Amino acid sequence: MSFDRLIDKIIEMKNPTVVGLDPKLEYVPEFIKRRYLDSDGWTLKAAAKAIFDFNQAIIDEIHDIVPAIKPQAAYYEMYGHYGIRTLEKTIRYAKLNGMFVMTDGKRNDIGATMEAYSNAHLGATAVGENQLEAFGADALTVNGYLGTDGIEPLLKVCRERDKGIFVLVKTSNPSSGELQDMKLADGRTIYECMGDMCERWGEDTRGKYGYSAVGAVVGATYPEMLTELRQRLPHTMFLVPGYGAQGGGAEGLKGGFDEKGLGAIVNSSRAVMCAYKKEGCDERDFAKAARREVIRMRDDICQYINLK
Amino acid sequence: MSFDRLIDKIIEMKNPTVVGLDPKLEYVPEFIKRRYLDSDGWTLKAAAKAIFDFNQAIIDEIHDIVPAIKPQAAYYEMYGHYGIRTLEKTIRYAKLNGMFVMTDGKRNDIGATMEAYSNAHLGATAVGENQLEAFGADALTVNGYLGTDGIEPLLKVCRERDKGIFVLVKTSNPSSGELQDMKLADGRTIYECMGDMCERWGEDTRGKYGYSAVGAVVGATYPEMLTELRQRLPHTMFLVPGYGAQGGGAEGLKGGFDEKGLGAIVNSSRAVMCAYKKEGCDERDFAKAARREVIRMRDDICQYINLK
Repeated sequence: MSFDRLIDKIIEMKNPTVVGLDPKLEYVPEFIKRRYLDSDGWTLKAAAKAIFDFNQAIIDEIHDIVPAIKPQAAYYEMYGHYGIRTLEKTIRYAKLNGMFVMTDGKRNDIGATMEAYSNAHLGATAVGENQLEAFGADALTVNGYLGTDGIEPLLKVCRERDKGIFVLVKTSNPSSGELQDMKLADGRTIYECMGDMCERWGEDTRGKYGYSAVGAVVGATYPEMLTELRQRLPHTMFLVPGYGAQGGGAEGLKGGFDEKGLGAIVNSSRAVMCAYKKEGCDERDFAKAARREVIRMRDDICQYINLK
Repeated sequence: MSFDRLIDKIIEMKNPTVVGLDPKLEYVPEFIKRRYLDSDGWTLKAAAKAIFDFNQAIIDEIHDIVPAIKPQAAYYEMYGHYGIRTLEKTIRYAKLNGMFVMTDGKRNDIGATMEAYSNAHLGATAVGENQLEAFGADALTVNGYLGTDGIEPLLKVCRERDKGIFVLVKTSNPSSGELQDMKLADGRTIYECMGDMCERWGEDTRGKYGYSAVGAVVGATYPEMLTELRQRLPHTMFLVPGYGAQGGGAEGLKGGFDEKGLGAIVNSSRAVMCAYKKEGCDERDFAKAARREVIRMRDDICQYINLK
């Protein structure tokens, strides 16, 4: 009922990063694709199988370095139910390897429908007397546009099962400001207002490090806002996308962390999954290349923060 | 590349309503559940199979009365990939029966990730040379908090494949105002600002009735806002949840329609799926009861609007 489990892992591994598993089929090396696509045909099913093998090999190589993975639901949904099966298997495999799993789904709805999403991704689905985990992730990204009705059902599951959520506050994309940076009549921006709601929603779920179960997504591409929000939201853990491929540098991340080097976890997806392409190494070494990249990323970020 | 296909159907059937297929397992009659749950066990798979039979029977009974269905993704996701298979089959079955399908997923993300969602739900996924439809719905609900970067990939698919989107503007839940009703420094509310963005995003996709491919979700529970937004957003088709079970009455919907009785489609979910419970008829007549309810709903709403 806080982010203590995640923060414990970050401290233990001295690594405040998470690997985004957003596996486009073009990222998967040919030798893996050939396993399924040549024999089974170029189908959604074959693609989904190849992607699972790809994820599994990366998890094998990074789980002792990186505390968490963040699978992006869209890249599984695009293969229909076959892709969703791969998402389930990926989450299970990462958890078996001791990793913290945050599903990037940006889900949002109200009341009973949000309860269904909460049960699906973080809790369990009741079928008769049985309580069955559909996905069983540790955290979920969500969109707060609908207000408290969309957040309460999540908080219930977070309390019961020691899970967490990350609410979109200031996203990393170029047009994030169109709505998020607009000034309210009370002087705040919309993203500040959303951030303030995160503090309120998380109020009674704070853990031993001071951070609640309600985190915020704040993009690395806006370093001043990251710094300003760290001050403004002292109990809100940040999930920070936009490092690396999207253009955010390590030094700019500094402001997202507190004086103990906590309070933020930085995501990298493509740079890890495609490290073998950038290195130009043999594609059969893709997972080793991913390992080298997560070590490089950890060291790059840790030089600017005070994580003991 | 507009909502013409949907509006054509609404005019042809003289019925501006859509049935939400949000099938909680408790809505499914015992005799259907017994088919799978008793023999296969109380599993996610058995539940998902029962739900498909339930949906199929309802579609059989309503497809000649109602132009569209709106499956809510959350109620399928909660059964993991088995549920997603049921969602796929439900969409396919409704389309085979000539219905317009709007998936209620409230999806949102940026760039390549939003492209993945667009391809998954409205377009097709590329696997080698193949273009494979994962879900193949006609429209998708989306959340615009991330700005234009999250909408552009959808517009591309809408243009290429004659699909549409509904952006959350003013939702039907009690706490929708927390963020959506806040006043901006320029005097508009956030929901008005989001509505204005819908007009802009849809600008070059207007069809023969004047409505673009970018619709808006506006709740029936706020009739004055519905009326005000109809005036403000003359090219934006409204998807209106909140009629019936959530408390919105038919007379209050009037303001959401234009002078020709067009421009809005009203959703009802629980009242249709659970009509047999309310009627107290034999559970084996659940689909016939659903048919009676959709006729009642159509007539209830049409008395207030000018749909020729």
